[in-house]
Amino acid sequence: MSIMRVGVLTGGGDCPGLNAVIRAVVRKGVNGHGFEFVGFRDGWRGPLDGITMPLGIEQCRGILPRGGTILGSSRTNPFAVEGGVERIKDNLAAAGVDALVAIGGEDTLGVATRLAELGVAVVGVPKTIDNDLSGTDFTFGFDTAVNIATEAIDRLHTTAESHHRVLVVEVMGRHAGWIALHAGIAGGASAVLIPEAPFDIEAVCAHVETRFRSEYAPIIVVSEGAVPADGSGMTLVSGEKDAFGHVRLGGIGDRLAHEIEQRTGKEARAVVLGHIQRGGTPSAFDRWLATRFGLQAIDAVADGEYGVMMALRGTSIVRVPLVEGTGELKLVSPQEYAEAQVFFG
Amino acid sequence: MSIMRVGVLTGGGDCPGLNAVIRAVVRKGVNGHGFEFVGFRDGWRGPLDGITMPLGIEQCRGILPRGGTILGSSRTNPFAVEGGVERIKDNLAAAGVDALVAIGGEDTLGVATRLAELGVAVVGVPKTIDNDLSGTDFTFGFDTAVNIATEAIDRLHTTAESHHRVLVVEVMGRHAGWIALHAGIAGGASAVLIPEAPFDIEAVCAHVETRFRSEYAPIIVVSEGAVPADGSGMTLVSGEKDAFGHVRLGGIGDRLAHEIEQRTGKEARAVVLGHIQRGGTPSAFDRWLATRFGLQAIDAVADGEYGVMMALRGTSIVRVPLVEGTGELKLVSPQEYAEAQVFFG
Amino acid sequence: MSIMRVGVLTGGGDCPGLNAVIRAVVRKGVNGHGFEFVGFRDGWRGPLDGITMPLGIEQCRGILPRGGTILGSSRTNPFAVEGGVERIKDNLAAAGVDALVAIGGEDTLGVATRLAELGVAVVGVPKTIDNDLSGTDFTFGFDTAVNIATEAIDRLHTTAESHHRVLVVEVMGRHAGWIALHAGIAGGASAVLIPEAPFDIEAVCAHVETRFRSEYAPIIVVSEGAVPADGSGMTLVSGEKDAFGHVRLGGIGDRLAHEIEQRTGKEARAVVLGHIQRGGTPSAFDRWLATRFGLQAIDAVADGEYGVMMALRGTSIVRVPLVEGTGELKLVSPQEYAEAQVFFG
Amino acid sequence: MSIMRVGVLTGGGDCPGLNAVIRAVVRKGVNGHGFEFVGFRDGWRGPLDGITMPLGIEQCRGILPRGGTILGSSRTNPFAVEGGVERIKDNLAAAGVDALVAIGGEDTLGVATRLAELGVAVVGVPKTIDNDLSGTDFTFGFDTAVNIATEAIDRLHTTAESHHRVLVVEVMGRHAGWIALHAGIAGGASAVLIPEAPFDIEAVCAHVETRFRSEYAPIIVVSEGAVPADGSGMTLVSGEKDAFGHVRLGGIGDRLAHEIEQRTGKEARAVVLGHIQRGGTPSAFDRWLATRFGLQAIDAVADGEYGVMMALRGTSIVRVPLVEGTGELKLVSPQEYAEAQVFFG
Repeated sequence: MSIMRVGVLTGGGDCPGLNAVIRAVVRKGVNGHGFEFVGFRDGWRGPLDGITMPLGIEQCRGILPRGGTILGSSRTNPFAVEGGVERIKDNLAAAGVDALVAIGGEDTLGVATRLAELGVAVVGVPKTIDNDLSGTDFTFGFDTAVNIATEAIDRLHTTAESHHRVLVVEVMGRHAGWIALHAGIAGGASAVLIPEAPFDIEAVCAHVETRFRSEYAPIIVVSEGAVPADGSGMTLVSGEKDAFGHVRLGGIGDRLAHEIEQRTGKEARAVVLGHIQRGGTPSAFDRWLATRFGLQAIDAVADGEYGVMMALRGTSIVRVPLVEGTGELKLVSPQEYAEAQVFFG
Repeated sequence: MSIMRVGVLTGGGDCPGLNAVIRAVVRKGVNGHGFEFVGFRDGWRGPLDGITMPLGIEQCRGILPRGGTILGSSRTNPFAVEGGVERIKDNLAAAGVDALVAIGGEDTLGVATRLAELGVAVVGVPKTIDNDLSGTDFTFGFDTAVNIATEAIDRLHTTAESHHRVLVVEVMGRHAGWIALHAGIAGGASAVLIPEAPFDIEAVCAHVETRFRSEYAPIIVVSEGAVPADGSGMTLVSGEKDAFGHVRLGGIGDRLAHEIEQRTGKEARAVVLGHIQRGGTPSAFDRWLATRFGLQAIDAVADGEYGVMMALRGTSIVRVPLVEGTGELKLVSPQEYAEAQVFFG
Repeated sequence: MSIMRVGVLTGGGDCPGLNAVIRAVVRKGVNGHGFEFVGFRDGWRGPLDGITMPLGIEQCRGILPRGGTILGSSRTNPFAVEGGVERIKDNLAAAGVDALVAIGGEDTLGVATRLAELGVAVVGVPKTIDNDLSGTDFTFGFDTAVNIATEAIDRLHTTAESHHRVLVVEVMGRHAGWIALHAGIAGGASAVLIPEAPFDIEAVCAHVETRFRSEYAPIIVVSEGAVPADGSGMTLVSGEKDAFGHVRLGGIGDRLAHEIEQRTGKEARAVVLGHIQRGGTPSAFDRWLATRFGLQAIDAVADGEYGVMMALRGTSIVRVPLVEGTGELKLVSPQEYAEAQVFFG
Repeated sequence: MSIMRVGVLTGGGDCPGLNAVIRAVVRKGVNGHGFEFVGFRDGWRGPLDGITMPLGIEQCRGILPRGGTILGSSRTNPFAVEGGVERIKDNLAAAGVDALVAIGGEDTLGVATRLAELGVAVVGVPKTIDNDLSGTDFTFGFDTAVNIATEAIDRLHTTAESHHRVLVVEVMGRHAGWIALHAGIAGGASAVLIPEAPFDIEAVCAHVETRFRSEYAPIIVVSEGAVPADGSGMTLVSGEKDAFGHVRLGGIGDRLAHEIEQRTGKEARAVVLGHIQRGGTPSAFDRWLATRFGLQAIDAVADGEYGVMMALRGTSIVRVPLVEGTGELKLVSPQEYAEAQVFFG
């Protein structure tokens, strides 16, 4: 009987823990199941264009603590390419690949879901910094991002208080406010604004003034996807210049700081954390979660159980149908948002 | 109707997140429920001897990121004191306390359990660095300890490889190997030894030699409570001296390093992480978990639901009977230990 | 003989280490010299408006590791206020203050210099994140900022490489490129752009393309005060929108990323570190330097040596005339910039 | 004219920054001077036994932030080997090496000094965690060690205060107390004991009791090489057992904690930081210093200036005769120790 040969790819935005998944898949696959591996480069572009790289114990040495992905990544969607599916099937066959482990978010796993329906033997591992994939309690990368954002908030407290300033911290979260909510609670923010609940700029400003009366300097954490409620009177700002005469405005963080300063007369500054939330070494939790996802994923391949993705439920890793993770987004519920309001009220 | 007055105490070893619980209990109690608070100092010694301190919004300012506990701690057991229970009841009454929030581990909550049976209105919040309390997925403090241990292992990898040495890292865990298991997986250890599975010193040494042949320098993570299997031939060492002629041996980490060096001829060194695992600022996860425990605990008081403790199940905080958390220890199962063996084999 | 009474104030932008200076001044002043202290709030606004706070051993407890300043800060300039100098002299007399320790940067020490000329007994402690004060090898706060920027660059490397992107990191430094230079060297940046040397955008883009050919993804560190050379053809960009349709452009970091993307066709992203560089706990080096500055400053007061500021020379703290630190800025020399070019070429 | 070929080796205990030196030497050597390189493995064992490895731009990729040394290390002394010098000369000739860059501490540079006298073209780069090499203001690795020790002390403060305990922290420093002194100042220790000043155990205990009366819990930082003064009455302890019945005593940290507990009746615990001080990623300062040492070292080779080592003086890197760095140790002076006593008194 021939040796089972497994392809691995990582797609979408990078995320601390991707390398930990790859390493676990390969270590368990080689040492536990006797499989061989081939790496596909840059997400779905790899199988689409037949771009591979060697992948084995040696390539995985020392990668556990490293951010990013040794396989590279992209947002290539083979279903947007004429004949894409056929090319993928041909390239998998040409590479002698019997099964595929696809590590990625909504888009990458969406492709995996459709390929599985078309008969490709694929197992998924969910990945999103934003923690907004349904079906799993947490995704790896999220804990690292929350730690980085919390450490930034810790640092900003002293600036806020020494200068009697409002500080607005913009964190990742296009559709879901998980990073803002967790980092806001952990960092002791005085308000958290999330995409799920359009905010009232007047209420935010009233809150800022209350905080100053009690001698606290407010720190406001805002998801990049948060928006003012319709009719709240907050308009797009324009024209503010920095010390060098450059216009420095744009995202919700900057706009909000500007608006608060205009309305309350308090100095307000924005910090946009951006890409530092998604790079670098993963937290211990994320390494543990990513490793366990990887171990279970290759076991699923060994069991011949395809069309599934891994999910954390409590402290167990379970396999759920791929569609579960790529159906609807997991959003912060009104109850969860309300629970934290005692600190933000 | 008079205002509800709630006492709070923290018992047992300190643990990152205690202050976050206290702050959440008080913030929600005052702002959400209109309660008043009194702090009892140094665990059960506070109510036993009537030692209190003021506790309100002001005392909780700025404590969220700080390790330790503003209330102090001790291992005092009132049931070991003649008339202890009566003194506690008297002192609670004297302080006008209607209900008590007790934050602590097996011992502290064990006392709470018995006091609840004797009619004291008490709600518990579980606390253990070791993560060995049953009834809850995780306890706060554990994630911080695992992060610290993982960072230490990251640092030791380079020393091990540059010097072709064996490094033994002793972490906390008297009865349960959770910290060793999680930090070992996250840090890429080549072996993890835990109390639940007495180890075979010959197998450990064989593993060390295998690792050296493949050019890796082994890092072995060992719980403080791990022990050699009966008849494994590992004896208590004695007499090794450091560069200054002092005998520097003792705990399992030191003994294991000595034994490996004697048997394999490879240089081996031990690092005992000790108290740095339990002090200092909590990780974001622990602040979030501790805060949510605190919010739920004071809500339980408001609901008049006593004799319960808080527990994490998935991403929800639930209330479970106090006895659940103080019955038997939560140990690493053979399956969980086996899952990680692919990295350690 | 009456007890010597010393006022302390902190001015300008906050900086990790301010509290360490205050603590050292007070601890040595009380325990070593038997002085009394009074704190002036919010920089020169304190003595100008007679706003004081108690300052002694108790107020300094636990502040060593904390960022910001317990005295508050401002940019108030008493020489810009009608009768400001007289008000300061009157308020110092009213508070019974015999001497003043002023901790601050160019502006704060500039005021101190002029007050010293007018007979006020003042000793200065230099402070600037940017490290651009002449007369001293280093100022506290700088090392912390460089560590934070370096850690951010470490994190961004993996994103740059996984996504084949250019990452531009904007760091502090309005007039001097010290943070960019040190963090660029420490973080392994592929180019560093500083205010002292206007850059040629075509050379930067050529460098980006060279890096990609050798399979490195470039990270470019840019001081907030860096500017394109005249006639380099780089224009102010405008109109780029983020995923939400908001214009997100402004500072040199954003403008540079946009320009590189336009010219090279490579995806480029900017991260603006901003205020997280100046908040939070100081590095060990900064705590040591700030503490030693404080010890020497109060010794200067005890010696009756006024009109001086503290300076680091090698490993010694020396006293230099205040004017030395407030004369001209310490800039990166062409030689120092050239030394690093081997990494950036 | 043939291309210059340079050998590089690293000797002695590992130290964060070794890889940064290697990278700077190679990058500047290749790109700036057109040199070729060969790596010698494991300190002087490499040239002694002719063990080499390829060394070029490719090998240095990504090593800047990594602890340890890609060349390996050892404490081999060729002068202790019959015919060692001849073997080194022969092996250097066989490898076509025109000059050697030796990176190491007292021992490694001592060998370099003697080889230079025997005509070998060698340039030295000083390395010691302990910062006790004379001739240079600081050595790389020291700042990283101090940061790690300071962070540990920060963490231990909360444990000390929550439990009313004495905590003893043992740090590196066999002959010199630099790490203890700097980390003690930066961490706010209440006493620092160093090898240069044998301590009076009665004075230490009196200090402990004073601290408790003022409600502080003392943290005592002790160098591994610190010793009690003759006749101070402190004896070697023996026999104390941990919770598992194992004798856990040995180094000065453990002995001191035991002695304080015996004499004062206060609970005392020791933490021995050990190898975590010398592993892992270097601080920004150490990367900057190591990089600049490397750049200057290869420039010295290019200048044909042998028999020198690099040294930091203020902010400049200078070349000093190798003997300067290998003559006598740089110890903490009585004045420097006294300066800090205001915090420890």
